[in-house]
Amino acid sequence: MQNFTYYAPTKIIFGKDAINNLENEIKKFGINILLTYGKGSIKKSGIYDDVLNLLRDYNIYELSNIEPNPKIESVREGVKLCRENNIDVILAVGGGSVIDCSKVIAAGYYYENDPWDLVIDSNLIKKALPIVTILTLAATSSEMNKTAVISNMDLNIKKGTRADAMIPKVSILDPTYTYSVPAIQTASGTADIMSHILENYFQKDKNTDVPDRISEGLLKTLIKYTPIALKEPNNYNARSNIMWASSLAHNGLTAVGKSGSWTCHPIEHELSAYYDITHGVGLAIITVPWMKYVLNDDTVDKFAMYAKNVFNIEDKDKYKQATKGIEATADFFKSIGLPSKLSEVGIDDSKLRLMADMAYKHGSMKNAYVPLTNDDIYNILLACK
Amino acid sequence: MQNFTYYAPTKIIFGKDAINNLENEIKKFGINILLTYGKGSIKKSGIYDDVLNLLRDYNIYELSNIEPNPKIESVREGVKLCRENNIDVILAVGGGSVIDCSKVIAAGYYYENDPWDLVIDSNLIKKALPIVTILTLAATSSEMNKTAVISNMDLNIKKGTRADAMIPKVSILDPTYTYSVPAIQTASGTADIMSHILENYFQKDKNTDVPDRISEGLLKTLIKYTPIALKEPNNYNARSNIMWASSLAHNGLTAVGKSGSWTCHPIEHELSAYYDITHGVGLAIITVPWMKYVLNDDTVDKFAMYAKNVFNIEDKDKYKQATKGIEATADFFKSIGLPSKLSEVGIDDSKLRLMADMAYKHGSMKNAYVPLTNDDIYNILLACK
Repeated sequence: MQNFTYYAPTKIIFGKDAINNLENEIKKFGINILLTYGKGSIKKSGIYDDVLNLLRDYNIYELSNIEPNPKIESVREGVKLCRENNIDVILAVGGGSVIDCSKVIAAGYYYENDPWDLVIDSNLIKKALPIVTILTLAATSSEMNKTAVISNMDLNIKKGTRADAMIPKVSILDPTYTYSVPAIQTASGTADIMSHILENYFQKDKNTDVPDRISEGLLKTLIKYTPIALKEPNNYNARSNIMWASSLAHNGLTAVGKSGSWTCHPIEHELSAYYDITHGVGLAIITVPWMKYVLNDDTVDKFAMYAKNVFNIEDKDKYKQATKGIEATADFFKSIGLPSKLSEVGIDDSKLRLMADMAYKHGSMKNAYVPLTNDDIYNILLACK
Repeated sequence: MQNFTYYAPTKIIFGKDAINNLENEIKKFGINILLTYGKGSIKKSGIYDDVLNLLRDYNIYELSNIEPNPKIESVREGVKLCRENNIDVILAVGGGSVIDCSKVIAAGYYYENDPWDLVIDSNLIKKALPIVTILTLAATSSEMNKTAVISNMDLNIKKGTRADAMIPKVSILDPTYTYSVPAIQTASGTADIMSHILENYFQKDKNTDVPDRISEGLLKTLIKYTPIALKEPNNYNARSNIMWASSLAHNGLTAVGKSGSWTCHPIEHELSAYYDITHGVGLAIITVPWMKYVLNDDTVDKFAMYAKNVFNIEDKDKYKQATKGIEATADFFKSIGLPSKLSEVGIDDSKLRLMADMAYKHGSMKNAYVPLTNDDIYNILLACK
């Protein structure tokens, strides 16, 4: 187990009607609030009205239309609004995209130059406005971590940045808010959550039992409840377990004691940067071909452990056990309606080489579980065709 | 799953030589430090000298000789020292007892009357001095939670109190500091950690998959590594996994979504209050008879789940499966050298009735997994003879 720092200070208020705690939590930070949200689903669902009603004694300013794969233009607009209105606290209502965008706005408020600098170099982030979130989609853990991923379509770059200052102070998680999430978004959310866990699970470090057992437990929970949530969108047991597993998947808990870089996320970031596809869908497509590509004598024991502890698969031949675990992963993604080929999401061969080169350039594949060259990444993308 | 608030804001700095971060973390809080510790094992181990050396530019005041099952007298002395010396931050170096005592000192500093009031009524705790800890024993999770247990031998009361204000700001966890922990303390630490997990695991709430799977993962880790730590006290893999499992066992993670009161802890608190025995030893003695006593048609499914997911025990008859899981628990405690009878720790029949009545009075057994009367508790204590 490697040395680590674990810091997940967000206060989580979880459950039905948790929003009733909003005013009590937000009043600590001030009265000028920037309310950030996406395309308006929070208006349809009634959360928007609830927020305005609960905060009727506060000054609310709004930044709406934050897009999936949030763009640097939205960050710039948010920073401008914060400065013009002396904002005390940002209230992000939505999924990971809204929260990620809000994080870089919060940091950008204290940075005098273009906030894109903060995406390129996280060391420039020294301070940020406090952030409170109301989560409407289980996927990214952004509500409980320091990471934000921002896209710059001019440069075709989708990149993560991170800083303790950007960790939300309070996050309100009401599983009933995810009842209306469409099936494909529910499934791709689960793929994203599982990928966060798998990126941490498959690392070289040995004797990392605590994070590994937690990871397996979260994976089993997701595999049990996602099909139920798809069949019965209003099933509270399913939605609540998925939502909480999502927050824990990428708040540090599954990553502590490990040292390597991630693989599937940097590759998927290129798919999203060039084709603007849904992040979780891209991850589901890449994960299984990546698993098959990196299965070798050094990794077979871990893949066999994964097969046993997550899918209860046993075989005397450890390669067969590992392969069955990978196949079970593919079967699970298929069973929840996720595509397994790039062609299914409109991505042809034309940019595979370019995206492989860019993933290699922007990622840190030399430090991955199995180090990859740009040719390796290209081969994995070819296997996703 | 019940509604919950999860708040575990402690910054954990974990690993070999983590103490090198001490000055960087403590300087945020001020220059007047109350250093709290126990009987002096930190002098033998060299940690005391390291602390003084790293903090040579600070004003260090000391409260030593904090006892296992810390007494209210130590709290009173600490509060006095804090006031006399304008203390900015308490640096607790030790195990749960030292940290628990430091928490109530930190809160007592801001409370004008006798700090025992804060143990009796946690609502009186409004504010506390910041606490930084250096952990030397894996057992209580006190380094990462809001709980403190204090004993008042005049009143024969050992009681817990809790407040967000008492949660340590930073905890430094170096597993090598636990290399010198004697076998019986290592084993009773594990019994304490396991009991924290089991008290949360065995609750009435259904569909609590996330905390349940995490609990099982932590239990498996402890069961794997404690025998290794006993055989090879300097085994880093064993000590690090036990230490981290200990912090997570009782920082809220295994408790979220659950609603009931604990059982074995309030009973054990009476054993310690009347006989001053080691907390973990008392818990190990009580746990198995309690499990047997509460096994019934309502609880058998959960005990069968426990047997399967923690010990890999399966049987077509769920009662047999459950019973085998309980027996495996007893075998495990025995295998790590823990007593299984009250007579082994010098407790005779004379106060069983009194302790049962007091456990009923001080605990909240009506809200336990299986509600217990004082007669039930007496029967459990009789089974521990």
